[in-house]
Amino acid sequence: MQVIGEKINGTRKRVAQAIAERDAEFIQELAQKQTQAGAAWLDVNAGTMPRQEPEDLVWLIETIQAVVDTPLCLDSANPRALEKGIAVVNKTPMINSISGEPARLQNILPIVVAHGCPVIALALDDKGIPQQAEDRMVVIRELMSRTRGQGIEDHRVYIDPLAMTISTNIHSANITLETMRLVRREFPQAHLTLGLSNISFGLPARARINRTFMALAMQAGLDSAIIDPLDREMRAVIITTTTLLGRDRHCLNYTRAYRAGHLES
Amino acid sequence: MQVIGEKINGTRKRVAQAIAERDAEFIQELAQKQTQAGAAWLDVNAGTMPRQEPEDLVWLIETIQAVVDTPLCLDSANPRALEKGIAVVNKTPMINSISGEPARLQNILPIVVAHGCPVIALALDDKGIPQQAEDRMVVIRELMSRTRGQGIEDHRVYIDPLAMTISTNIHSANITLETMRLVRREFPQAHLTLGLSNISFGLPARARINRTFMALAMQAGLDSAIIDPLDREMRAVIITTTTLLGRDRHCLNYTRAYRAGHLES
Repeated sequence: MQVIGEKINGTRKRVAQAIAERDAEFIQELAQKQTQAGAAWLDVNAGTMPRQEPEDLVWLIETIQAVVDTPLCLDSANPRALEKGIAVVNKTPMINSISGEPARLQNILPIVVAHGCPVIALALDDKGIPQQAEDRMVVIRELMSRTRGQGIEDHRVYIDPLAMTISTNIHSANITLETMRLVRREFPQAHLTLGLSNISFGLPARARINRTFMALAMQAGLDSAIIDPLDREMRAVIITTTTLLGRDRHCLNYTRAYRAGHLES
Repeated sequence: MQVIGEKINGTRKRVAQAIAERDAEFIQELAQKQTQAGAAWLDVNAGTMPRQEPEDLVWLIETIQAVVDTPLCLDSANPRALEKGIAVVNKTPMINSISGEPARLQNILPIVVAHGCPVIALALDDKGIPQQAEDRMVVIRELMSRTRGQGIEDHRVYIDPLAMTISTNIHSANITLETMRLVRREFPQAHLTLGLSNISFGLPARARINRTFMALAMQAGLDSAIIDPLDREMRAVIITTTTLLGRDRHCLNYTRAYRAGHLES
């Protein structure tokens, strides 16, 4: 399971403030803590103000890279911000994200190709998020045909089947899980990722829903997720599910995590 | 999810003592607490001493029925004990269990047929527990052909695909989950049940493994389990997974459980 640490996100109030005030210490602490907690990538979102975004993204990247060497996941729909960001990264970043929306494909895909980036591909297009799994597959097939057409190997694509809240449609989780099973069958080399906390929007005890959904999603093929790596209980669920799914020889990782105190409830 | 409450089991030291001392209060408290916690059935195991078992089972049944009317699951391989027990139950009990072992089939199946009982059917025979899912299916098919041959409808059969510990074979959970998926496809009307705590035998933080396995097993089709209904965290996982799997219209059961304080972590 590759964890993409979600915490450095300018749409969060406290992070937006840190960006505005150039509070490097606050950002660096988020970067270090997520890295120590095992994040494989750090998502970096500089907020959504077009004029400032390129400059803010560059500041964020340089601030983060001063303290950790974890690869970054540049989270922007703004090609100018992405180009500025890519010019200063130390390691090839992941791009978050393309989708079936023509503008996104036209603006972002060339950057992905030019720099050999891994890329998150969202199962939506200009008509929105398809309701049924089979319709999300139509979008995903189109996206994969575009990335393949540009010579991007499947294993560089992180397909996000999208999770909508079960509070407005009780079948939302099933639709996401079914989409993942179909992707696993049809594109076995592609990764599956998920911004998974949407699933519980509008409900109480959200963390409980999110972590149970993580176990179910891993069984359906999820191998990456955009989450808070500091969420101890979520991390414990990932460790436990990895072991139960047979990917932990002799349960060594599980027993090691136990001894390190990561599995206390 | 039908919970079969596991606590009244004479192979547990404290219960054996209560049986020996005819400590009705202790047994009745177990019966009441499991019932209040939502058990659909109460497993009743009078221990394994052949001479005493029939008499002890009758005492247990009468003691339990004095305080609750939850249907019982008579847990015995002893036909004489089962016959004595069935003579005193108020409601048709489940029988735990038959298997592909010829002696079990010969001794227990006629009792199931004669009294119209639901029955747990274990995926093992006189050669033991098959290693692979497909081989467990061979045993299960033979069992289903026997129950069908005796006119027992599939929905009265609770197939237990068996869970061995992952501590000695890291693929144990996958084998159990795969067997469940195959049963769901081939015998859609049959129930699936599981004595699920075996999965974590020999490992630390067992409760964590057990409850994560519960979520995965429910996704694979589990609709019944032999567990401790008083395990709050396990109960919360069952509620949450039921909701995520789309079986909780408008998330009403989830929000109700939250308001009742069942989802605190």
